[in-house]
Amino acid sequence: MSILDVLLGRPLKTAEQKKEKLSPAAGIPVFGLDALSSAAYGPEAALTLLIPLGAAGIVYILPLTFGIILLLGIVYFSYRQTIEAYPGGGGSYTVARRNLGAFAGLVAAAALMIDYTLTVAVGISAGVGALVSAAPSMNRYTLPLCLVILLAISLINLRGVRAAGLFFMAPTYLFVGCMFSMVGIGVVKALVSGGHPTPVVAPPLLPPATAAVSVWLLLKVFSSGCTAMTGVEAVSNGVRAFQKPVVEQAQKTLAAIIAMLILLLAGIAFLTRAYQVGATAPGSGYQSVLSQLTGAVAGKGIFYFLTMASILLVLSLSANTAFSDFPRLCRIVAEDFYLPIPFASQGRRLVYSQGIAVLAVLSAFLLILFDGITDRLIPLFAVGAFLAFTLSQSGMVAHWMRTGGRKARRSLIVNGLGALATGVTVVVVTVSKFAEGAWVTTLLIPAIIILMLSVKRHYERVGRETANPGKLELAEMSPPIVVTPIANWDEIAKRALRFALNFSPDVEAVHVDTGRGSRKLQADWESLVAEPARNAGLPVPKLVTLKSPYRFVLNPILDFILNLERTYPNRQIAVIVPELVERHWYLYFLHNQRGQWLKTLLLLKGSQRIVIIDVPWYLSR
Amino acid sequence: MSILDVLLGRPLKTAEQKKEKLSPAAGIPVFGLDALSSAAYGPEAALTLLIPLGAAGIVYILPLTFGIILLLGIVYFSYRQTIEAYPGGGGSYTVARRNLGAFAGLVAAAALMIDYTLTVAVGISAGVGALVSAAPSMNRYTLPLCLVILLAISLINLRGVRAAGLFFMAPTYLFVGCMFSMVGIGVVKALVSGGHPTPVVAPPLLPPATAAVSVWLLLKVFSSGCTAMTGVEAVSNGVRAFQKPVVEQAQKTLAAIIAMLILLLAGIAFLTRAYQVGATAPGSGYQSVLSQLTGAVAGKGIFYFLTMASILLVLSLSANTAFSDFPRLCRIVAEDFYLPIPFASQGRRLVYSQGIAVLAVLSAFLLILFDGITDRLIPLFAVGAFLAFTLSQSGMVAHWMRTGGRKARRSLIVNGLGALATGVTVVVVTVSKFAEGAWVTTLLIPAIIILMLSVKRHYERVGRETANPGKLELAEMSPPIVVTPIANWDEIAKRALRFALNFSPDVEAVHVDTGRGSRKLQADWESLVAEPARNAGLPVPKLVTLKSPYRFVLNPILDFILNLERTYPNRQIAVIVPELVERHWYLYFLHNQRGQWLKTLLLLKGSQRIVIIDVPWYLSR
Repeated sequence: MSILDVLLGRPLKTAEQKKEKLSPAAGIPVFGLDALSSAAYGPEAALTLLIPLGAAGIVYILPLTFGIILLLGIVYFSYRQTIEAYPGGGGSYTVARRNLGAFAGLVAAAALMIDYTLTVAVGISAGVGALVSAAPSMNRYTLPLCLVILLAISLINLRGVRAAGLFFMAPTYLFVGCMFSMVGIGVVKALVSGGHPTPVVAPPLLPPATAAVSVWLLLKVFSSGCTAMTGVEAVSNGVRAFQKPVVEQAQKTLAAIIAMLILLLAGIAFLTRAYQVGATAPGSGYQSVLSQLTGAVAGKGIFYFLTMASILLVLSLSANTAFSDFPRLCRIVAEDFYLPIPFASQGRRLVYSQGIAVLAVLSAFLLILFDGITDRLIPLFAVGAFLAFTLSQSGMVAHWMRTGGRKARRSLIVNGLGALATGVTVVVVTVSKFAEGAWVTTLLIPAIIILMLSVKRHYERVGRETANPGKLELAEMSPPIVVTPIANWDEIAKRALRFALNFSPDVEAVHVDTGRGSRKLQADWESLVAEPARNAGLPVPKLVTLKSPYRFVLNPILDFILNLERTYPNRQIAVIVPELVERHWYLYFLHNQRGQWLKTLLLLKGSQRIVIIDVPWYLSR
Repeated sequence: MSILDVLLGRPLKTAEQKKEKLSPAAGIPVFGLDALSSAAYGPEAALTLLIPLGAAGIVYILPLTFGIILLLGIVYFSYRQTIEAYPGGGGSYTVARRNLGAFAGLVAAAALMIDYTLTVAVGISAGVGALVSAAPSMNRYTLPLCLVILLAISLINLRGVRAAGLFFMAPTYLFVGCMFSMVGIGVVKALVSGGHPTPVVAPPLLPPATAAVSVWLLLKVFSSGCTAMTGVEAVSNGVRAFQKPVVEQAQKTLAAIIAMLILLLAGIAFLTRAYQVGATAPGSGYQSVLSQLTGAVAGKGIFYFLTMASILLVLSLSANTAFSDFPRLCRIVAEDFYLPIPFASQGRRLVYSQGIAVLAVLSAFLLILFDGITDRLIPLFAVGAFLAFTLSQSGMVAHWMRTGGRKARRSLIVNGLGALATGVTVVVVTVSKFAEGAWVTTLLIPAIIILMLSVKRHYERVGRETANPGKLELAEMSPPIVVTPIANWDEIAKRALRFALNFSPDVEAVHVDTGRGSRKLQADWESLVAEPARNAGLPVPKLVTLKSPYRFVLNPILDFILNLERTYPNRQIAVIVPELVERHWYLYFLHNQRGQWLKTLLLLKGSQRIVIIDVPWYLSR
């Protein structure tokens, strides 16, 4: 059993694919963690922007949440259709590519890739940040903790999608259970008390108003609240991961995730209003909205701590959704040749290991760069998600326009509304957060697109030059001229020469004379080589001695070979490179690496007509 | 003109060897810098140990210096004979090896290698240390300055021995000129004043005595003063670097170096006595003995600063002697197969570039490890030099015992005395400095010897298995079985197959079926490959499809090849690896590196009967 077997589990047969497929119950932890955990920060983000309005601000939270839920409904409707129309997965990328053209697809893909990478870094560092603020002595371990969690999530995902589903099930349902209990108890208490419940632990009083309401402020609040929607596209990207019937199972999962999210958002909005809970400014005295709410509803007992712990856990594990989707997205993009082909191969556990590894490396890089505190990355990251939403909605509009019919017209209107709403959100988010960092995203997206386009161009070029070769052509075949460099007459040289004579009558042994005496080799050639060859009825190999006044060994051989190639434009040249294979890497220091260098130089400077033959020599054990 | 031409100069022909040979005038800077610069720290080291004796201590400096000069004379006499007896160079290593056996030679070689590496690190950091103490603002650039000087000395040495001689001539003769002027003027003033000259700038008063004299103290003073002798063996190591007549020129150089050193040591000892100059304790108020002397003799004018500057320069350039000798020593040891053979090849400028590079890396490592402050290394480094002296003297004793005759008897006595004196010094130095760091040397020497012995054993093994192969044997030749892995039918595969059919009737194309559909290849084989082969009257290549339920590609191919090798114990297997050659390294990310991996695995797991044929495919420009 190898170390990989222990870390990742035994390899899975391609035929075992079916066992790895997800049910909705396992699909929610895999694809829903990101969306569900948004409930923990979306309302908070909106309320934070309302702080300047004081107690009056809370009034706006209900209609704004209603707007967000409406948008969520539209987006749900859209992705539900997407899943049905494109059961191959790929979500926004596929929809945009099929309906709006390759370029729109690439925009969506680039936006999502950035978004997923940020989700991982921000999610993990938010979770660790919450833990560290609860236990300040852990502060100096922030970065190591982040990296350990990242490594753990990567390994779990490399173990296969089913393993990830099972592993993340407990924290997900713990979170969902706690949140629903809290919201449920709160709503009942509020209704019973006629809308004015008495908090068990009173939340801090709301500060006095310092600003007046404005449309721009409300737009910003709305767009901040919309971060509650990130992660919703996840299911549509990974449709193929589900059990049969694929579309139905994926739709069920999506419906469950969205329903839970809507209930949570609505419940939280209702409770903030009922208990008069607002966001608190960062710094000392800061307390998250969910902490205030849970305290107000249920007091600060065991339930409070369980709920807080589940939020912390789900935040730091929300990265898992990105680990499910990023590799699948890369796979579909790679199958269209916009990314390196290895992204499309299934690893030992039937997941797209290359994508998992790349995502882990990229987000580790971000975490290390920002020392595990990625707050500054948050402005970068709603842009990508909403850009993808907008492209996907617009793609569906184009889809319905092509389809036609009455049902299509209704869908068209819904998706059109969605496209408009998410499009406005993109603009608002980009403009309001441009200086804070959103500009990075607007530069990264085109950069990634250019990269993907050049990858595609390269593959097309290779394809053009190598595909469709027609039948094997065997006319005008002649044996190659064989060149074998020879330093001394030893077993290695003897073997190389034997091999050479085996397949060509034209053999030239090349010896470089650096002034250290090559006369012995020349003198012995007749008796050691020429005579035996003649006796065996074979052509006699020529010994060519190249003078090297500057003691260079490789250059004269290389020049000789390239010259030979020019002199015989219709022949192939086979260069035999004898090689002593050592059992330990450090033994290579004991020999010059001329064989390796010659091979490298021949590949670099050679042509199609030069073939390299590696004749190894092993020392006996 | 390449960048190497600019940095190191154009390559030199082997025939230009003669022009690179040294005259004594150029040989003194190359081989003498280390020995001459010792005059700057040997007396200082002895006087420092005499501080506790107060003014009374100075009395001992004259007889002790007389002893050191006597020892120097013996060592000179010995190395003069060594040069004559072993004009091939190699100094202590050669003498010990030829007269006392291989093991004694290795001890001397190991001791000298350590010594040279330390000389470089200590010399450069001492020079920079002096500069930095004169200009404290440079303090934080200590390490960078050390490394820049190291790089400069390495490059100058890589430019060839003649370039080094010319470059170091000016500082060497400036130093010698200043020192002789200072000593000369001082001696004249002392004699004129009847032994009691008036100092121009009075040196600090000598402190009161705090300890009584003891034999052990005087032994330690003597052994410390003996560091003035390090570097004396240099000429004997590099005899071959001199012009003809080699022996005479080398002896002249050695004589000049020793004569200058003796005059300087005697002069300094005389002046310290006459001017009552002692060492000062380190810390504030510290002033070097030479600084006090120069001030007392000539005042602190321009001459003073010139002299101080030349001392600083010569100290930091004393590393150059190690750069001349270390590579030459390694070369001679490598020619005996105790070090990797590449140490024995002359680089583009006819010097042993590998040795220069290795010395630069090792001493850079030391400098970086100690952050440019290598004081703690000083205790490590007299041990090596005196061990080499002792072995060389003992070797000469054995040499004379073998030679016999009257002249030999006299020489034997001198060398025997030398061996005794230097041997005692080794013991005193090792014991007195053991705890301070000399123990490291006593561990390093055996470690290096073990390393050298294993290198030799490896070469002997390779030699045993590959040398003297006898005549070329050509009986029982049969064409190899050719295996070519094939993924798709493209130009690359076509070319590989064409090449295969060119030299063997047994061709097997191996295709791995990972479940992504290989039926097309199988279906087309007949029309694309088999039919054309039959039409050309050639044997038909077999298409072997290997099922790979776990999607591994390399393992099935490797197993197939190894299995084939076992099945046909008398045939060779030639594996054709088609390779797409990319023009830029980053393009390799776009393709799997299965070809490279297959080659590596075949070399690792294969046998002598498996040959690898690399058939490159270039994209058109």
